Amino acid sequence: MNILKIFSDTPLTDPARKLLMEGVAPHEVLFPEKAVTSVLSKGGTDPQFATADIAFGQPDVADILQSKRLRWVHLSSAGYTRYDNAEFREAATARGLPVTNSSSVFASPCAEHVFAFMVAQSRNLPAALQSRDANGSATWNALRNAAVSLRNQRVLFLGFGAIAQKLVELLRPFQMSLVALRRWPRGDERILVITLEQLDETLRDADHVVNLLPDTTESTRFVSAQRFSQMKPGAVFYNIGRGTTVDQTALVIALRSGRLAAAWLDVTDPEPLPPGHSLLSCPNCFITPHLAGGHRNEAESLVRFFLDNFKRFLAGTPLQDRIM
Amino acid sequence: MNILKIFSDTPLTDPARKLLMEGVAPHEVLFPEKAVTSVLSKGGTDPQFATADIAFGQPDVADILQSKRLRWVHLSSAGYTRYDNAEFREAATARGLPVTNSSSVFASPCAEHVFAFMVAQSRNLPAALQSRDANGSATWNALRNAAVSLRNQRVLFLGFGAIAQKLVELLRPFQMSLVALRRWPRGDERILVITLEQLDETLRDADHVVNLLPDTTESTRFVSAQRFSQMKPGAVFYNIGRGTTVDQTALVIALRSGRLAAAWLDVTDPEPLPPGHSLLSCPNCFITPHLAGGHRNEAESLVRFFLDNFKRFLAGTPLQDRIM
Repeated sequence: MNILKIFSDTPLTDPARKLLMEGVAPHEVLFPEKAVTSVLSKGGTDPQFATADIAFGQPDVADILQSKRLRWVHLSSAGYTRYDNAEFREAATARGLPVTNSSSVFASPCAEHVFAFMVAQSRNLPAALQSRDANGSATWNALRNAAVSLRNQRVLFLGFGAIAQKLVELLRPFQMSLVALRRWPRGDERILVITLEQLDETLRDADHVVNLLPDTTESTRFVSAQRFSQMKPGAVFYNIGRGTTVDQTALVIALRSGRLAAAWLDVTDPEPLPPGHSLLSCPNCFITPHLAGGHRNEAESLVRFFLDNFKRFLAGTPLQDRIM
Repeated sequence: MNILKIFSDTPLTDPARKLLMEGVAPHEVLFPEKAVTSVLSKGGTDPQFATADIAFGQPDVADILQSKRLRWVHLSSAGYTRYDNAEFREAATARGLPVTNSSSVFASPCAEHVFAFMVAQSRNLPAALQSRDANGSATWNALRNAAVSLRNQRVLFLGFGAIAQKLVELLRPFQMSLVALRRWPRGDERILVITLEQLDETLRDADHVVNLLPDTTESTRFVSAQRFSQMKPGAVFYNIGRGTTVDQTALVIALRSGRLAAAWLDVTDPEPLPPGHSLLSCPNCFITPHLAGGHRNEAESLVRFFLDNFKRFLAGTPLQDRIM
């Protein structure tokens, strides 16, 4: 049996590391000499990389292109901006190098995170949890009236991949009206799908605009000043995609003017926002620092998903979450 | 036509007041001379009360008992502690005086509120929204791992009335294991119902204990030190019933010791808690000040529900939410 070498710069807990090593045995794992601390961070170059047959993590692009042995790249993230360019795609295609990501690992937690944003907003939780108002006071009556059920409201998804599809399931009991903008509709969406031409009119009707766009050259500042100006007064904006897809200056204006009731962001540009950034002092702007994909035993989930794909790789069956 | 007089001390917005007056016309509404400011507050005595055929709000118990004309009492709350005693019940029964409450108005908002608590807890929102941690830092990795999906977890409902039944619908996508303690099982619960004898063993398995008990003589401090000590380590406790049903001293101990992961309370005893109360400085104790039933246009919802019952009253058909 040909023993494969798997280079993994994915930051792993001890149990996850053990799971990976035992899961691939008798194949071998090469860990980088310098540890990586975030599943989102770029790995460094490492002398062992040249001997690896498989890379699992965030391997260096130049290392991948230079490697003569590499037969598969499995990314530890859902986003893959640093690999998403013509040069890399062409090189991967030319070499027949499959590239997969970990989209399936993060779809459920991400959907639950944005769902938590929506439900917390509907019950006005940030203000409600701060209040010690007495029953019957004017501020208490105002807080009671600030809760607006999601029921029967309209949601517009910008992007309709794995996260949005999980989110649709969670929203089902609220019987909302759901619409998605999708570049390439597949016909299996089971909700109304619109084209870019229909976006302006759809923005005017949406109570909730959920931005799930990945970072691509076309998505940069996609949610522009013009698009914020089309949104329904009192709408709520959510960003769970990438910070670069939003014109944050326009978002600040939309929040300060009261046009948007609130914004809930898990991603910003940059991350974290520097102290004093104007979004940090915006009324009703709620920010979590890129935590949406997080979940208990995340490293073990990543390893389990890799191992599942590893079995497919060995068996020569189609890999899950293949992106190239 | 006999013109009925409806005494209403329910605090109403102008549109709700108009809705009520137009909705009952040609029958008349008597508003109290001194306005009431909370749907939960006891109304005062009022000289007009003696001339009323119907009372809608939180009418004074002595006034009700003294009235010779009164034919129906419709309470503006779901709770009805101040009417729930043998003397009042017997007097109402003897006179054939129907008493209804507004449980249907508050069930959905209350269910959505406790659901928001559960979802916010699962995504660790209070800490996540405070954090400005950089990707990859130790605190950031800890936050990412602190999110625990509701999926497949176990919920124990203490009480299984209208709120719990709405909550079951909202929880459905999470495929949780649901168990309810109900004094008088009806057989239509569609989830596992346990008796008081099975409570201790059930407490040991529940990831989430949702207390929905009303304030009655039997429910006082029902969630006792002994019961907190039975709960699964790391469980989360929610109270959306009444503050008096919980031994708050024992709750403080359970939170301080870390036995409970968190408590989310919409009700406390007293309300609001006085400054310096030990629950206010407890780790992971999240409190909203009796806002669960609140929702936009609450006063109009209350009036609409009253009007619906008023039509039934005039037609002689069974009243909704009849409690006596």
